[in-house]
Order: sequence, then structure tokens, then C-alpha cells
Amino acid sequence: MTGLPHIDGLIAPRSVAVIGATNDVTRIGGRPIAAMLHAGYEGRILPVNPKRETIQGLPCYASVDALPEAPEAALIAVPAKLVPETVEALGRKGCMAATLFSAGFAETGADGEAAQRELVALAGRYGMRLLGPNTLGIYNVATGYFGTFSSSLDTGYPKLGNIGIASQSGAFGAHLGALARDRGLGCSVLITTGNEADITVADAIRWMAESDTTDVICTYMEAVNDAPALLAALDAAREAGKPVLALKSGRSAVGAKAAASHTASLTGDAVVADAVLTDHGAIMLRDPETMMDIAYAASKTVFPTRHSLGIITVSGGAGIVASDEAERVGLPMPPMPDGAQAKLKELLPYSSAVNPLDCTAQALNDPSLLESFTHAALEDGGYGAVLCFLTYVAGSEAMADAILQAMGPLRRAYPDRIIAFCALGDPEILNRYDEAGILIFNDPCRAVRALDAVLRFGSERNAERSSPPPPSKPVSLPDASPDEAAAKAILAQAGIAGAPERAVRDAGEAVNAADELGYPVVMKILSPDIAHKSDIGAVRLNISSADEVRAAYAAILAAVAEQMPDASINGILVAKQLSGGVECLMGINRDPTFGPVAVFGLGGIFVELLDDVAVKACPFGPDAARQMILSIRGGAILQGARGRSPVDIDALAQMLSRLSVFAAAAGKRLQSIDLNPVMAMPEGQEVYALDAVIELSDGRPGADDH
Amino acid sequence: MTGLPHIDGLIAPRSVAVIGATNDVTRIGGRPIAAMLHAGYEGRILPVNPKRETIQGLPCYASVDALPEAPEAALIAVPAKLVPETVEALGRKGCMAATLFSAGFAETGADGEAAQRELVALAGRYGMRLLGPNTLGIYNVATGYFGTFSSSLDTGYPKLGNIGIASQSGAFGAHLGALARDRGLGCSVLITTGNEADITVADAIRWMAESDTTDVICTYMEAVNDAPALLAALDAAREAGKPVLALKSGRSAVGAKAAASHTASLTGDAVVADAVLTDHGAIMLRDPETMMDIAYAASKTVFPTRHSLGIITVSGGAGIVASDEAERVGLPMPPMPDGAQAKLKELLPYSSAVNPLDCTAQALNDPSLLESFTHAALEDGGYGAVLCFLTYVAGSEAMADAILQAMGPLRRAYPDRIIAFCALGDPEILNRYDEAGILIFNDPCRAVRALDAVLRFGSERNAERSSPPPPSKPVSLPDASPDEAAAKAILAQAGIAGAPERAVRDAGEAVNAADELGYPVVMKILSPDIAHKSDIGAVRLNISSADEVRAAYAAILAAVAEQMPDASINGILVAKQLSGGVECLMGINRDPTFGPVAVFGLGGIFVELLDDVAVKACPFGPDAARQMILSIRGGAILQGARGRSPVDIDALAQMLSRLSVFAAAAGKRLQSIDLNPVMAMPEGQEVYALDAVIELSDGRPGADDH
Repeated sequence: MTGLPHIDGLIAPRSVAVIGATNDVTRIGGRPIAAMLHAGYEGRILPVNPKRETIQGLPCYASVDALPEAPEAALIAVPAKLVPETVEALGRKGCMAATLFSAGFAETGADGEAAQRELVALAGRYGMRLLGPNTLGIYNVATGYFGTFSSSLDTGYPKLGNIGIASQSGAFGAHLGALARDRGLGCSVLITTGNEADITVADAIRWMAESDTTDVICTYMEAVNDAPALLAALDAAREAGKPVLALKSGRSAVGAKAAASHTASLTGDAVVADAVLTDHGAIMLRDPETMMDIAYAASKTVFPTRHSLGIITVSGGAGIVASDEAERVGLPMPPMPDGAQAKLKELLPYSSAVNPLDCTAQALNDPSLLESFTHAALEDGGYGAVLCFLTYVAGSEAMADAILQAMGPLRRAYPDRIIAFCALGDPEILNRYDEAGILIFNDPCRAVRALDAVLRFGSERNAERSSPPPPSKPVSLPDASPDEAAAKAILAQAGIAGAPERAVRDAGEAVNAADELGYPVVMKILSPDIAHKSDIGAVRLNISSADEVRAAYAAILAAVAEQMPDASINGILVAKQLSGGVECLMGINRDPTFGPVAVFGLGGIFVELLDDVAVKACPFGPDAARQMILSIRGGAILQGARGRSPVDIDALAQMLSRLSVFAAAAGKRLQSIDLNPVMAMPEGQEVYALDAVIELSDGRPGADDH
Repeated sequence: MTGLPHIDGLIAPRSVAVIGATNDVTRIGGRPIAAMLHAGYEGRILPVNPKRETIQGLPCYASVDALPEAPEAALIAVPAKLVPETVEALGRKGCMAATLFSAGFAETGADGEAAQRELVALAGRYGMRLLGPNTLGIYNVATGYFGTFSSSLDTGYPKLGNIGIASQSGAFGAHLGALARDRGLGCSVLITTGNEADITVADAIRWMAESDTTDVICTYMEAVNDAPALLAALDAAREAGKPVLALKSGRSAVGAKAAASHTASLTGDAVVADAVLTDHGAIMLRDPETMMDIAYAASKTVFPTRHSLGIITVSGGAGIVASDEAERVGLPMPPMPDGAQAKLKELLPYSSAVNPLDCTAQALNDPSLLESFTHAALEDGGYGAVLCFLTYVAGSEAMADAILQAMGPLRRAYPDRIIAFCALGDPEILNRYDEAGILIFNDPCRAVRALDAVLRFGSERNAERSSPPPPSKPVSLPDASPDEAAAKAILAQAGIAGAPERAVRDAGEAVNAADELGYPVVMKILSPDIAHKSDIGAVRLNISSADEVRAAYAAILAAVAEQMPDASINGILVAKQLSGGVECLMGINRDPTFGPVAVFGLGGIFVELLDDVAVKACPFGPDAARQMILSIRGGAILQGARGRSPVDIDALAQMLSRLSVFAAAAGKRLQSIDLNPVMAMPEGQEVYALDAVIELSDGRPGADDH
């Protein structure tokens, strides 16, 4: 039981009505009944079909009204046009949870979408929760509840375990279930959400986070239909110590197109979704196999606090291959302490005792060597996980007992650490290690990737959370998108500093401003209609005398007159030209799914083309901003690579945090902000937004705020 | 039989003497005999042991001299100190190929290395080829020759097939063999080369390229001990239409360290090895599992000429996941032609017929839909490979026959294309598809990666080879590393243009030079002792008047006097300051394994930190240089991204090609060249090396050239 009673009723019902029940076990209305009978469902099955006395040997009822009790759940396997009256009847009867197998709703177009909305409203009147429509349903292995018509059961039933699966796609969810089953992994529940008219993967994840049936949550999504609920569900899972392994498709151009035609909702931008979900603790994956590898490792519920790996090998080559993979994924492999190295060298002179630890083919004849090396790695190395590459040796009948005898006590002595084998051979033999609590992988690189994910989860659980964002001030936005000077004035109120500058209306004022600010100066057009000023020659740099100021003033106006004659002009901006810093870009984009998202990167065309940016949902505090800034590949430049002076990262983080707070407070009319460049000056010398563009949607200020 | 008779004798001998033979089948001298007896070796086994009349039921000989014939091959399983006399005796007897299991040579240090050198010299006197020492040996599945003591055979024997394995590491090679066996893949030979005193993986690859036993070559290397032989072997394999799948370890810092401690030779720079081996057709991999996936796909020896993929799926979600992976690895998925899409839509209205093609769960009940979609993908889409995601459905007994009946004729009608299934289920059932010529994968992403590799191999085999590099002129190098002006003069003779510039010796000459060249100019110190001039303030930019020239002259000399007072000074260089181009860097590094290697990237600190460079062994022609230039991630900038004018890529390619020809002709004293920046001007305006540093090793010019 969880704190979500209606979903308990949907996933673990004590009775289920099957509307459209049939004797034909290959049809949608027949499959679930056959499956529940086969699996020994512990609740009551109530088939409904006006034409039959019994269905698959069970008493059958002519209608929902004729049912002897209010079923806790219902499976609806009738054509789309009959669904509304069925839901109505179920509601009247007091059923609180229905699974709608029926297709023919939002996935078919506008009419279906309208029908689906009406259905939700109808169910809502009875307080009934809906799964689907167009869903493959649910199974709950522990209770034998198989509210699904998946043909995956034709090739075998799932094994009971602690891995839960929530999938928008029925076929893909069933594929994950079959994949787990074929690998011998145990599942708790499979929940496929179809069109998500009501219940979403977020609800399914939330239920699993609260349910003690599930320790590891696997999810497949194409679109995020309820972002706040999803993020709250992820937070709940993290809080409960349950990793969420997420595969969100639609990354590539081709994939995104297929996603749009496949689901009834738009797929949000993949980079943003990745960043936001990762921020809430999800482990974002690309393929189902890696998902199952990590689910397997996590299903043991050992999450060491140290994100570090020790590798012990009987083949130097394999040690190198695995180490290379660890470096690639960023899993640290610190060397063994010197003293421990010396002891191992004494034990086995030709060994390598740094990390990877090569205990050579000697260990094949003498498993005590394996034990000594593993013990040293756990005790002296202190690694979160130890991976032993044992290849075909561990899979031989002759060696298995000796290895188990050597390693079993270690396994028990270090219960909070992971011991994993990379081994080939007879699955029956390898399974003995698994039963002794030792993880078994075939491939060293897959082992490294799975261990990395589980270790990362463990170490991040214990890491300090970022402090909350500073409180926001009220934001008042103008009627229309402001020009640069107005944009900077708005941002200045939010504590975001532009460069020292003056807005001027004639050449004389421009010269005075330049004299005051000090040369060299930059001059640029002030117009709300011109976003990319330098593209049309309306920005001039390196202006170092009064004559040049006058010449630039004329040249800019001439350029604008020629290229954008209809642009309204509010004057020209004269700004002190800063140098010696590093150009960055900072911005806000309103994501249709996750709302305002901050973007940070280095400035310049190169970095832009190389996609080296960090992304984070607004708002956030300065320490989170700092992490974000340092996470980009070019972050080293800001910290003073190659003899440069480090820039004022504290000031940069302050500005980014303030921008995020401003964006979150500004409401839905704020479409985007571009601060490009932001000049990050050397440490202690602050940072300045040299240009600012704010784009607002039309409409009165505040009209559709929040 | 190949054109390598002694290696034939080593790998497929008709008789083999086992020196140090024993009855104990767990020992090195006993295992090979037991394995050959078990496998039914078709040749003659001649055990040698002074203390026994028979060994494992075979007549035993007291010594090599006592053998009744010259064995074609010998296995040496005696302690290191007895190896030389054994080799000597075998040489006298007329044996031409010996496998040295014995350890205790180069892998143990300098003494062992000397002993190993003597051994090679000794064998050389008899024309005898050596495998090892410190090798796990060879197996040849077809002839039952098991010249190996690998304990991998304890868990089963390899299956006969067309995949050959060549590995420096014995344990890793045996692991690959066991991995293939556990997956049901057939192998021809396993050759492990150990210390490579004589025979290297290059020889093994060469033999496989020539032998008709092998169609796919898998190799694991830690160091390249004979680069020219390796490249020739790769060329021979490509010529023979046999893909070489290579795992070269030591990529990461940790990995490289382990490699150095593990083998008797240095590991070359990983990036260079990757680039050079890829250039010679090797498929470079990171993990053994991907190697086996590709080996499996390639073992069918169908290499379509088109590098394109069509995906057919019964789950939209899986189609998206697989498409995302195809995009990630760069495998094109062009859409279906419009007409074909319309036909499929007519056949199945709710399908998606673009690519991926979603034939929906309908196809589960009606395999003729699967056939129609696959036929359209092959015929109308023209894809090199078609991947059908069938999940657990294809694995059900009920569906297998129907699917095979639908797909079998297609398989036969398009013999030059690949049809692959992604499927789960009973291996026995899945194997039926494999036997019908349909590739079977469990994971859609692994399938995509394997297909990509095989399709790439097929399309590149048919691609035009780059034209050869232009002929080189003789190069004469100075006694010591030249200063910038001298370096530019040397390069100018090779057709590599510097910016318009003058070397001057006083401020007056500097002003004259600047007046002649036209302002603005750049000024910098001329000194052979100062490589990084800007780091010490010895470069000045944006000099735009005679006064500024004088000031800069004094300032540069003052900076050098303060920071590098002992540097010898040859004057100051005044150069026209070019602008409007894109800064690139070009260079040469002498790789210890592969000789001079050219490097190309964009200039600037950002790109340098982001490792976005292309690398290629010298020399090469302009078209290869062009490919290299466009292969970097930032290549779009050179082609005119974001409204920039495209740069003169032809001139850039000419310069890079000329640099490569110069470097190849310059001989071993050339350590490195840095042209940084090279200013690539807009199209038609040429490119200029604005700075040039040539580093030479000490010694008389030409002393150790070539």
C-alpha cells in the first residue's frame, strides 16, 4: 500500500472486472483472464459479456450493472465508441480505476483527442482514475494481477523481483519486461501508460517510489506530459533511495520526427529534458541493454558512497580495456596506497599492484591470490566497487567452488561495497556467484558502465544539495520586447550589470559620452526591431577618438537606413570597451515542457558550433550556477588554463543565478533572454553583460503571467 | 596454404614436436597434447621427454635429436634457461617454426630482453620463425591443431568458422575465443603472439588475409612492434575484402600506464594509432563485445555497397531508440520514396512509412505485413541493411515458421543486402533465422552499431582511394633548430607561404618595413631560443603608425631582456597583420611508432582545449588533406557557417599536403613543426603561415636521416 490509494487499486486490485471478456485467449478481452488464471491471481476476476454464462470457466456477468460488487479495477476491452458508456457504468458502480486497452482516441487525430478529453471529464465526475487509452496495461508479478494483453507472455512469464518498469509505449515496455525475463532479472510491476489521458509515467514512478515492491525503477518516455509531477516523482524516488533509469527517445532529428508521429503529444527538446531529469536524479540512458545492466547492478540495493573502482585482473590486456572504459565514462580509479602495493608485490612478484591490479594467470591455480588482491582493494584501496576480470576461468566447474570459498567471506565482510566478476561460461555456474551476492557481467566495458551508474547514484545521494535560489523580486515587464538599453535597465534591477554605457541621440552627445567613459568605446544601434545588430553593420568596435565617434555615428545610421529602413530607432549606445576578459554567453529559453531554462557557454562562434553549453531549469542558487559553469568542456579556460588569469567565477555564478531567478519570476510572457557576450573579467573584477536582448510574447504585461 | 610457408607451418603444421611433454594434462607440456588428442588433430604429435617411453599414449622421444623426422612445428614448454639449446637442436633437426610457451624473457627486464635477442639471432641462423616467447600459443580449429595451453578449453572447444583472432595478450585472446564460443560464433584460428620476439600480430593478420580459412580478422594489440608490416597486413586484408576489427588498448592515462608495465614495448600515442590504423581500413573498437557483434555480422560476408539503414518496427518506441543510435554513430537513414510510402499507407493506414517504418502490432498477427514493409525497404528504399525490431514475437514458437516463410524468399531475392532482426526469446528458435541468413541481435542499439561497421566497410571498399602525395623535393636541414625567419625560409622552399614580412635589426629598419608592408603590422622577436613568444610579451599586434613601431621595438627587447636574458636574438620580425580569415593550426609530430604525423585543427585556445584535431601519417596528397580538414567538428566554420565567408580550403589543403610531403622527406632529425596560426583567408585569397617553429634533434644535418 502506498499513499496513492487509487493507483494501488489500479496496480494491485483485489478484484477486477473485464469488460469485453471472451473465451478466445488470443484476443484482447481473453488474454488478461488467461494470464491471471495461469499466474494464480490472488484477487477476484469478474468477466463481463452479455452473451456468455461463463468465460474461461469463471461466472460471467451480463453488464457492469449486473456485477455482484464494485470491482476495485476494471479492464476495458471494448471498441472506442462503447468506452464512454462503460466508464459511466463503472463509475456508477463505484469502480475507482480503469485500464483502457481500447485504441481510437488522441492517437488518431483531433476527433479522438476530443473524445479522450470527454472521457477524462466523465471519469473525473466519479473520481475514477484512468490508465490509457491505447495502453497495453499492467502486470503485477507478486499478486499475479495481469491486467494486460501483451503477447510477450506467450514466450514466458516474468520472474518476481524488485525492478519496476513504467513505459509510455506498450510494445517497448513489454520488450523491457521480456529483456529482463530473458536475463533472469526479477520484476515487480510493468505499467504502460499509452495515451496518458490521466495517469502518466510520473504517477507510475511515484507509485513505485512509495511502494515497497520496487527498489529500482526503469522508465521509457517519448514525451513529458506533466513535468511538475514527473520531477516530484523523481525527487520522491531519490529520497527513497531508488534509482530511476530513464530512456527518453527522440534525441536525433530522425528520432524526434518518429516520436511526433507516434505519440499524441509533442516531444520536448531532448537536451533540456536530459539536463532537467538528470538534475532530479534520473540516470538518463540511450539503450535498453544498458538500462538492464544497471537495473541488475542496482537490484542488489548496495549503493556505496565512494565513486571509485578497483579492477583486479588475470589478464593485463583486459585490465587495460576496462580501465580505458572507466576513464571514458569518468569513473575514478585511484591507485592503491604504496604500502598495500608493496605487500602485494611481495606476495606475487610479477604482479602489478597499482590499479588495475594484475594478479596474473597465477591466480587461476591459486584462488587465494584473488582473495588477497580483492581484500587489499576493498580494505586498503577503499574502492566503492571492485571488478574482477576472471574470463572463462570463473565459469569452469573445477574452479567455481574454490573461488566461491575464497570470495564468499569477503563478500560478507564488506556488505556496503560492490564485488563484481567479469566472467564467461555456463550460466548455471555463473549464477552461483550471483546468489552469493557477487555481480556477474560478461563484458568488462558493460560492467564498468553499470558500476559507474550505481556508484554515481550512491555518491550523489550523499552529496550536499545545492542551496536554494535567492528570493525573487517582483518583475514588471513592458508591453512589448524592450530595446537594448531598456532590457539592460530591467536586468539591472535584477542585479545584472551591463558595461558602463550611455544612450545618446546625436553625435555630439556621443562624443561627450565617450569622453566620460574613456576610450576605446563600442557604439551600436538602439532599436527594439534589430536583434542581430552586428550582422547588418550596426555595431562598431575599437573607437578611440572623438573623430572616430562621429564617423561611427554616421556609419551606423547609414547601415541601418540601408538594410532595415523600417526599424524604429531609439538612438545609439556608447559603451566602454572592456578587454582582458573571457567572452561568455548566458541566456534563457522558455521550454514548452519545463518552462524557463538557463543556458551558459563560452562566447564565440567556435564554441557555439561545438554545442558546449550547460542547461538548467530556473531558478537556482549561485552554487548550482557555479557547478553549471564549470561543467562545460571549455570550463578550464575560465579557471585560467594555459597561463591565463582565472576569471571572476563567483561573479559569473551570481549573475547566472540572478538571471535564473529573474526568469522564473517573469512569467510566461518571457520567451527568451540573450546576454551575449557576457564579459567575464579577471578575478575580483566582476562580469558585465555587454549586450542584452529580451524577447516577450505579445499582449499586455502580466496578461498570462504564471 | 598462403604465400607465407613458414607461418603455414606454424599455424597448420602436419607434425608437431612437444618439447617438455608430460602426462599431466593440467601442465603446460601436457595440455596441448591432450587438446590435440581430444580435437582429433590430423597431423603427427611427437612428444619429447627424456624420462618417458610414452606420453598420453603416444610414443615419446628422449630428445629433439632422437625425433624420427624434422617436425614442421615445435611447442617449447621448458624453463627459459633451457630454451636456447632446445631452439638450437630444433634448428639442427630442420624444424622451421617454434612456439615458445616459456616465460622469463623481455617481460622480466633488461637481462631477459638480451636473452630474447640472442634467441632470435639463434633461430635466424636456421631460418626458423619463432612465436613468443611468453605466448599462450595457437589453435587451428579446422585441423584440430591445438598448440596452446589455454585453460579456456576446460570449459569447451571452439566451434569451426571463419573468424580469426590475433592477440598480443594470451589471456585476452583466449577470452575473445571463449566469448565467440559462448555466442555460438565459429572461429578459424587463434594466434597469440606474446613478447613478439619474431612473429607479430602483423604477421598473423597477414596470414589470415591470405588464408582461405578466415573471412573476418579480430585483433587485440597493446603496442605496435612493426608498423610497416602492420600497415601492409591491413592493406592486404582490405584488398582481400576481409574486415579487420581491432582493439588497441592503452587509450586512457590509466590504461596507458598499465600497458607500459604489461608489455615489453612502449605503447604509441593512442590518437595517432587510431587515425593511422583507421586510414588503413582497420575498424577500431573499444570493447570485446562490439568486436564480436561486428564479427558476427561480418562473418556472413555480405558487404553491401550502400551505407544506409532502413528500420522496420512493431514498436514505435523501439524504432525511435534505434534511429537515435543510427544518428549518433552517423549511419544514414534516408526516408522512403514518396510513392512507396503511399503504397504502404494504403496497405496499413495507421502505419508510419517514412523511416523508421512502423508496421505496428498488426504485423504480429500478420507476418505478410512484415514481408511487404521489408520488401519495400529493400526494393524502393534501397537500403544497404534492413533491421526489423520484432522483440519477443520472433522468438515465439507460434510465429517463427510464419515469419521465416514470409522473410525467407526476400532473403534469397536480395543476396547482396543485409536483413537483421532484433529479437528476444529461445536461442534455438532465434537460431533458425540465423540459419536462414538473417542476422539476429538482442539489442537494437548493438544491432545498429554492428550494421554500421559492416556497411561502412562495404561502402569504403568501393570508394575511390585518395590520389598519391605529390613527389617530394630533397630537404636539407640546418645544424640546429632554426629561428622563425629561417624556418619560414625552409618551408617557403617547400611551397608553404608565410605572411608578407621582413626581418629587421633596428627600429629605423622596422619603420621602413612597416611602411612598405602597409599598416597595421605585427612585430615579434626573432630568436631560436624562444618558442612561445607571446607568453613573455615578445609579440605585439595592431601596430598602426611609425611611432607605435618604435615603441613596440623597444618594448619587445625590454620584455625579452627581463624574462629571457640569455636568449640569443636575431632581430625583430615585422609582418603585415592579416584579418578577416580564420586562424588554424597545422603541425607535424614525429610519432615513435608511425613516424611523422600531420595535425590539423582550428586555432585559438578554445579548440585546443576541446581536442578537435585531425591526424594523419605523412605524406599525403591534397584531396586527403581536404578530407582531413573537413573531418574536424569545427570544419563547418571553414565552409562558411553562420554567415561567414568560406575560407580557401583548396589552398589550405595544398599547404597541409606540402607540409606532409616535406615532413616525410626531412628524415628522422625533424622532431616537430608548428604552424600556429595559419591564417586561412576567404576563398581565392590563399592561406599564410603567420608563425613557424621547426624543432630538430641535435646532430649533424643528415647524420641519422631516414
